[in-house]
Amino acid sequence: MSRTIAVLGGTGAEGFGLALRWAQAGETVIIGSRDAKRAQEAADKIKQRAGAIAKISGMENAAACAAAELLVLTVPFEGHAALLKQLKPVFRSGSIVVDATVPLAASVGGRVSRTLGVWQGSAAQETAELVPDGVSVVAAFQNVGSEILNAEGPIDCDVIVCSDDIEAGKTVRALAAKIPGVRAIDGGKLENARILEQITALLIGLSIRHKGHSGIRITGLPPAAYTGG
Amino acid sequence: MSRTIAVLGGTGAEGFGLALRWAQAGETVIIGSRDAKRAQEAADKIKQRAGAIAKISGMENAAACAAAELLVLTVPFEGHAALLKQLKPVFRSGSIVVDATVPLAASVGGRVSRTLGVWQGSAAQETAELVPDGVSVVAAFQNVGSEILNAEGPIDCDVIVCSDDIEAGKTVRALAAKIPGVRAIDGGKLENARILEQITALLIGLSIRHKGHSGIRITGLPPAAYTGG
Repeated sequence: MSRTIAVLGGTGAEGFGLALRWAQAGETVIIGSRDAKRAQEAADKIKQRAGAIAKISGMENAAACAAAELLVLTVPFEGHAALLKQLKPVFRSGSIVVDATVPLAASVGGRVSRTLGVWQGSAAQETAELVPDGVSVVAAFQNVGSEILNAEGPIDCDVIVCSDDIEAGKTVRALAAKIPGVRAIDGGKLENARILEQITALLIGLSIRHKGHSGIRITGLPPAAYTGG
Repeated sequence: MSRTIAVLGGTGAEGFGLALRWAQAGETVIIGSRDAKRAQEAADKIKQRAGAIAKISGMENAAACAAAELLVLTVPFEGHAALLKQLKPVFRSGSIVVDATVPLAASVGGRVSRTLGVWQGSAAQETAELVPDGVSVVAAFQNVGSEILNAEGPIDCDVIVCSDDIEAGKTVRALAAKIPGVRAIDGGKLENARILEQITALLIGLSIRHKGHSGIRITGLPPAAYTGG
């Protein structure tokens, strides 16, 4: 599959970690950033860690968006809606926006262990309202912390994937399963993103309280639920 | 520790399963129900499964509440506030109310995979508003499904325990750790109960979608976080 993945906000720790993991898996990745130079620097760092074979480059966010059909949003919530409005004329028709955003209260000076109420129900549902027709939205990766992504070795965390577009959900589960250790689970409709976003706040609270880097595993489902298929 | 545990709403599947597990662990348990006769029948069934040694009895909810200092609420959300108002004059001072209630939309004819918005933030926080002074509220056990509790063998699910009363939280973590397989994790303040309640809706949705009995495990914390201490 010759898709290109653009990680928008990819100079932040979460986006950088995802881009690193996909570059290591042999995917073609573009780091997007407000600043093309910083995007290029992040891409160079990933090339150093993943090896010269890594297919990675860096661009300004809008250019990255125009160059890919699989877009991953990893910006802080305070920049989320503004970025989507900026990208609106640039999206390719048929592209998939994977939203990993969590509306942490830290965006407005509150705590990282609390979320803001988003009118649409979740950041991902806000995204669905802000993208043009023909662009699908998938919620995923909120619960995989940046420290875990940027560390070496397999990840002890499941990725729950929610979307109203069944095919887009399947594509993103396959992408998630490229990260060693991750099991990608179909979490149903996009409306469930609100729960994934809340779980992140809980995990951040647990990580602070117990001094760790917490994640979640879902137990008790039949093997087929964990295949990412 | 010679405490008595009263499981209010203990004739329902969730309460029955918790009472069974604690009876099997040698705890003194009272099943509470609106109907004393049904409570007694449930207690007899638990005695059959746990062995004659089980210290279990059945009473009407208010009598059970008056006879114990550790009360576990496992009633459907639609009966939650009414029960607490009924019990208000009966609570012993210094007792602990463990709230396992989830405000599922099913309470008002909606889906079991969605929650209602509760003004106070969560069912457990509503409970905190409805109990008399001197009674502590702890949120726990929302994420352990009744099918899992009522099956044989250890449970593949963590119990996250939230309370504003540190000592009460500790007591309930010790109680949770009596259930084989359960790791009891301090989840911080009672306000975080809202996330535990949402997780249940997600787990129910996953169980329906994938035909299983799902639970959660928290990964990535240091060993001390899982001891229940």
